[in-house]
Amino acid sequence: MIGILIVSHSKALAEGAVEVAKQMADERLPIKAVGGLDDGSIGTDAVRIMEGLYSVYTEEGVLVFVDLGSSVLSTQMAMDLLGDEKMKSNIHIVNAPIVEGSIVAALQASIEDPIESVIEEAENAWKMNKL
Amino acid sequence: MIGILIVSHSKALAEGAVEVAKQMADERLPIKAVGGLDDGSIGTDAVRIMEGLYSVYTEEGVLVFVDLGSSVLSTQMAMDLLGDEKMKSNIHIVNAPIVEGSIVAALQASIEDPIESVIEEAENAWKMNKL
Repeated sequence: MIGILIVSHSKALAEGAVEVAKQMADERLPIKAVGGLDDGSIGTDAVRIMEGLYSVYTEEGVLVFVDLGSSVLSTQMAMDLLGDEKMKSNIHIVNAPIVEGSIVAALQASIEDPIESVIEEAENAWKMNKL
Repeated sequence: MIGILIVSHSKALAEGAVEVAKQMADERLPIKAVGGLDDGSIGTDAVRIMEGLYSVYTEEGVLVFVDLGSSVLSTQMAMDLLGDEKMKSNIHIVNAPIVEGSIVAALQASIEDPIESVIEEAENAWKMNKL
C-alpha cells in the first residue's frame, strides 16, 4: 500500500489533516504528520521530514502533501538526506491542496489504485467544488 | 476589517489552519477556528459554528472556509440559527481549499482589500501551483 506524509508549518494542522484523511482510509494505510519545529513553533525541518518519510515508506511509493512553498524546499532537502536514490525516486511531492488532496489520496490509496492514478486524482482536488 | 472563520471536522486542523494563516495576517484581523464536536471527536456542530460566526463578525463581512461537504451544510444551518437576515447576508462560505484559501484571504483582508476581491483571490487559490 502507498504511504502518505502530510507536511505543514503547523504541528496541529498536519496532525488534524491526518485525523480527517484517516476517516476515509483503510486502517492499514501508512499515513503520518510532520508539522512545525521541535519546540512546537511554526516552521518545517528537513530532518523531521526525513524521519517521517522513513516512517511511511513502502516499495509502492510515498506521496507527500505540503502547505506552503517552503515546505516543498524542506521536503526536497529531506529526500536528499535519505541518501538512497531508489527510495528517493519512490517519493512524490504532490501538487495538490494539502487537506483536500490528502483526503482524496487516502481514499484512492485505500482501494489500492496505482500510484499514478492516486497522484492524478489528488491533483484534481484543485478543481473540487464545495458549494 | 473582514472576519475569517475556519470550520473543520477536526479541532486540530481548524486551529492549525488559523495558526498558519495568522502568520500572514495583520494582528487585528478577527480569525478563529471551529473544529470537531464538543467532546473533541470528528464532526461539525452548527451551534458551535454559530458562536464562531458571532466571535469574528464585523459589518464588513465574514468569510468562512470549510473542509468537506458536510461542513458547508452545518455552516448554512449555523447561519440560519443567527436569526438575523442582515448579519446572514454579510457571511460568505468561500469555495476554496481550506488551508490555501484561508492563507490568501488572511493576507488580502489584512491589506484591507474589499470583500469581493478577497473572495475572488481566495477562490483562485484552487489554481495555486506548489511545485
